[in-house]
Amino acid sequence: MDKFDIIYGKNSVTEALIAGNREINKILISKNIHSDAKVNKIKDLAREKGIVFQFVGREKFTPYEEFNHQGIIAQISPIKYLALEDFLASKKDKFCSLVILDGVEDSHNLGAIIRTCVCAGVDGIVIPSRRNVQVNSTVEKISAGAINHIPIIKANSLINAVQTLKDNNWWIVASDGNAKDNYYDIKYDDMNFALIMGAEHAGVSKSLLKASDFVVKIPMQNNFNSLNVSNALSAIIFEALRQRIISAKK
Amino acid sequence: MDKFDIIYGKNSVTEALIAGNREINKILISKNIHSDAKVNKIKDLAREKGIVFQFVGREKFTPYEEFNHQGIIAQISPIKYLALEDFLASKKDKFCSLVILDGVEDSHNLGAIIRTCVCAGVDGIVIPSRRNVQVNSTVEKISAGAINHIPIIKANSLINAVQTLKDNNWWIVASDGNAKDNYYDIKYDDMNFALIMGAEHAGVSKSLLKASDFVVKIPMQNNFNSLNVSNALSAIIFEALRQRIISAKK
Repeated sequence: MDKFDIIYGKNSVTEALIAGNREINKILISKNIHSDAKVNKIKDLAREKGIVFQFVGREKFTPYEEFNHQGIIAQISPIKYLALEDFLASKKDKFCSLVILDGVEDSHNLGAIIRTCVCAGVDGIVIPSRRNVQVNSTVEKISAGAINHIPIIKANSLINAVQTLKDNNWWIVASDGNAKDNYYDIKYDDMNFALIMGAEHAGVSKSLLKASDFVVKIPMQNNFNSLNVSNALSAIIFEALRQRIISAKK
Repeated sequence: MDKFDIIYGKNSVTEALIAGNREINKILISKNIHSDAKVNKIKDLAREKGIVFQFVGREKFTPYEEFNHQGIIAQISPIKYLALEDFLASKKDKFCSLVILDGVEDSHNLGAIIRTCVCAGVDGIVIPSRRNVQVNSTVEKISAGAINHIPIIKANSLINAVQTLKDNNWWIVASDGNAKDNYYDIKYDDMNFALIMGAEHAGVSKSLLKASDFVVKIPMQNNFNSLNVSNALSAIIFEALRQRIISAKK
């Protein structure tokens, strides 16, 4: 069991089955759950892919009580983190985007960020090897399976990662409440860019701000400067997507 | 005690003290917490406003163990919900915006939505009296005090509320994944608008979609149509703010 992670919840398990990029050892389904369309889909997918599923008593779920498992868990190989160099080598022939997380600590936030990035077409998420929440069961659940659709890149040093990106003709945008420019003053449609979002409380670290090509803010109303990091990301990254879609139509 | 709600956490209590729009009966501070700058600010504000605070043993927090209370709770009068008619009567002489929530069920989502709305300058949030999570302790905590900066309007019938808004020269925009228009195709800067966001799974109900003047979508990438409701709101509402800021400069 040691080499497997646990993912839980109907959506997480379904998405992992569909993505098929991680080995699934076994799926456990509670005897007590109502077999709805989602559960049937999981069974169908498992059969199709030759993956074992077992109906088990609720006592098997006792270790996972703290999670909203919906009566379904799967034993799955841990996600594979990518190295930045490998990501850059596989880069497609178009303008790409990355989101760099500088010390995001909350699993719910990381899960929501992963979902937002997949929906907005971001090409990868960079997290530091330390000082950041890692991809755990809660992150997988909150991401609603999005984790299987985007590479997670681990970097020992974000400063080095930013330098590598700059050396490869990427532009670095950092989000900071004290910036002069608003996030929509930047043109995102004619460059590879990496957007740095900071920790929930501390924001983006000074050294990364200094290394950035652009520092942008969201114009906060009501003197209330306390937007959740995933919601702040959403505002900025969908503006970048808006610009790219409009630009592609021209 | 019955007439008081409990709010918990340093930020929630601080914001409630600053806002001063709700009666605070008492603040309980755990003897075991480290007295940092935030705790000192709470004590100073309470002294200034003549509100009792007590240092208590950790057993007083036992009923609130499930919450991330940080050793601080306050007994506070429940938030006052507004009627839509009263909101409209108090409307300022400028273009306003509302967010209407059609059956949002998750406390974390409602808390994040409230924060986003305050940061984006939304003038009020409409929730139905039933079929929607109400403002509870978790919502207050996640909103990080934002709840004190925006009116929450309760409506017995969202359809009637929408009709009332239309009768008062408001325009109704609904978010729906099957819409033809993208959210940024609409001009938000020359009208009062109410944006309807749907439940996490079911989306905006058919009757409300039918009553809307505009139905818009967020262009989802990667065929992954599963953006969290607070993140979807963030993308749309900050686009509206962007348009309004740019328009005001002209």
